[in-house]
Amino acid sequence: MTDALALARDLIRCPSITPKDEGAQDLLSRTLGGLGFTCTNLPFGDVKNLFARRGTDGPHLCFAGHTDVVPVGDEKSWSHSPFGGTVADGKLYGRGAADMKGNIAAFIAATATFVHNNPDHKGSISLLITGDEEGPAVNGTVRVLEWMAKNGHTPDVCIVGEPSNPKEMGDEIKIGRRGSLSATLTVHGKQGHVAYPHLADNPVPKLAHYLVALSDTVLDVGSAHFPATSLQVTNVDIGNTAENVIPARATAMFNVRFNDRWDFETLENKIRSILDRVGPDYDIVFRRGAHVFITAPGEWTGLVRQAVTDITGKTPAMSTAGGTSDARFVSQYCPVVECGLINETIHQVDEHVRITDLETLTAIYGRVLEKYFLR
Amino acid sequence: MTDALALARDLIRCPSITPKDEGAQDLLSRTLGGLGFTCTNLPFGDVKNLFARRGTDGPHLCFAGHTDVVPVGDEKSWSHSPFGGTVADGKLYGRGAADMKGNIAAFIAATATFVHNNPDHKGSISLLITGDEEGPAVNGTVRVLEWMAKNGHTPDVCIVGEPSNPKEMGDEIKIGRRGSLSATLTVHGKQGHVAYPHLADNPVPKLAHYLVALSDTVLDVGSAHFPATSLQVTNVDIGNTAENVIPARATAMFNVRFNDRWDFETLENKIRSILDRVGPDYDIVFRRGAHVFITAPGEWTGLVRQAVTDITGKTPAMSTAGGTSDARFVSQYCPVVECGLINETIHQVDEHVRITDLETLTAIYGRVLEKYFLR
Ligand SMILES: [Zn+2]
Ligand SMILES: [Zn+2]
Repeated sequence: MTDALALARDLIRCPSITPKDEGAQDLLSRTLGGLGFTCTNLPFGDVKNLFARRGTDGPHLCFAGHTDVVPVGDEKSWSHSPFGGTVADGKLYGRGAADMKGNIAAFIAATATFVHNNPDHKGSISLLITGDEEGPAVNGTVRVLEWMAKNGHTPDVCIVGEPSNPKEMGDEIKIGRRGSLSATLTVHGKQGHVAYPHLADNPVPKLAHYLVALSDTVLDVGSAHFPATSLQVTNVDIGNTAENVIPARATAMFNVRFNDRWDFETLENKIRSILDRVGPDYDIVFRRGAHVFITAPGEWTGLVRQAVTDITGKTPAMSTAGGTSDARFVSQYCPVVECGLINETIHQVDEHVRITDLETLTAIYGRVLEKYFLR
Repeated sequence: MTDALALARDLIRCPSITPKDEGAQDLLSRTLGGLGFTCTNLPFGDVKNLFARRGTDGPHLCFAGHTDVVPVGDEKSWSHSPFGGTVADGKLYGRGAADMKGNIAAFIAATATFVHNNPDHKGSISLLITGDEEGPAVNGTVRVLEWMAKNGHTPDVCIVGEPSNPKEMGDEIKIGRRGSLSATLTVHGKQGHVAYPHLADNPVPKLAHYLVALSDTVLDVGSAHFPATSLQVTNVDIGNTAENVIPARATAMFNVRFNDRWDFETLENKIRSILDRVGPDYDIVFRRGAHVFITAPGEWTGLVRQAVTDITGKTPAMSTAGGTSDARFVSQYCPVVECGLINETIHQVDEHVRITDLETLTAIYGRVLEKYFLR
């Protein structure tokens, strides 16, 4: 039987900072090969990816995850070596312990138990593993999904192993994510000396009016599964160092995290209308980021949620909060839910996972497999 | 007799970019010595200064000026060498032609004629010449005035030779100047990720509200001799390069050019009250620049104005507009008026003075001397 703790520890010992792999995916291939998976390496650019499938029939349940990790930060501040995989005080320490090597290990351990108990189960189990989730996310999950679609491997349902719980196992599963739209707003004026303001046209007060209008407008109050759309001004750039000079130009940057009441086009039109009400003296350039997505609550989300409840006794919230993950790409192909460990220490010094949580997650994933394939 | 054109040309040929002198003040000393002036060199720090006085009695009329000039800028763009003192098309070209070597030459030429015609006039004529008006203005006029006060040379009236006319001789004399107050306004928030705005506190919308309040408040509509007080935001500094990060801090810089309805203290209190109405989330640091000053219209301003009218046929406006000049320091000691050439080309490429204007100014200064000493 595969031990989640031992596999997680061995994965942590591969210092696979994006886009490096350092043996992580070969370790998975060896482990999965022993469980009857067919493993295909799918390198794109400088990124290693792995697709592993056990079985050829439907229904097809896919686990999606990443072996790459973010940098360690200030290594001296770590209590245990970030790539040592140390177990102490009932916790496994290391970069990637929670995001998301522990989750991958739990899924493989759960699968090992499930196929041992049900060697001839119907359908297929697969793993989509990328080495580029924390990086540009160009040569990772997107490309593997394209390859899967071309080769008859499009799954019916997907569980993404991102650490989805804020504080405790059973807190949350994630069923969607807000979209992200960035913009650069520029107001042009006329440069001049502060002693002769009538000969100049100061763009800063105009920009301030635009920013007040943007920040004070309530775009919505949320939707069934999403919090309210949030617009945050992140920077203002005037670039003027002379205290007695009225600048020629003032620029602001902002980002909108938007819910499913909007798409890029309706949101951009709304922003222009807010600006137009203030005045015509602006240029705006939008940069479209992640689109909004939602896996509408239904059979798959209900199944995963019930599995969490069966194991933890808690009813997890169906969350759409937080930063982006590769689930947004998977959502183009099939229903997708994110369900994993606790995200409290991810991307931080002393990232760790409690061993009991690793066991709990293994049990949850095992319950998902049972409910999905043995129903 | 001293020829204003020849003296202006010789002064221009001294490339006296602040704080360099390059023989300019020695040239003045030689010329003034020949007219019966006692010349005292008053170096402070790296700045050369000159005080020259003819006579020991009152009343004492002082001409204040500077021999230093601003840099030439793009020398290739000049039609004539900036330190060549070229005469062409009825104009004398060169850096300092209008600001203010031409003005000094006109005053000395006028004085030469006046003392030739009135060798035993009552009172004293003096020149306060600094080499640090265009620079930090620390070791120049301020220090010379202190020395003059200590040594019994405080004048009764002063004329500062700054080029005071926007377009034509007779346009304006200047009787005061607005004060200048700068400030740095800082709003503190809490840094965070744009995806979790409830965990952060974005300082930019707050700053925008403060800037709207500051920019939209009418501080006053002007006073008897001053235009309205003007507040100009000159810079905003967030220093955030990460598009997905809500910044911890937002800073703005602004400058107020204020009239005689205010002093530093009342103005700072007013600004705080505007900010307080928006909210308490700011820090402000003020930097006091030039104080406001006015030589109340009276005998001296009337005399200079009438002299301009006698020569040009025009009634000059009593202006308080424009940037700072050393008149602000002189105003601490006696009534002071700025009266000189045309400022249209100062600090620019191809700075020049029309020779007829140089003659007009010499006549104006001569008329001032007559009206002051022969009344
Ligand atoms: Zn992750
Ligand atoms: Zn000047």
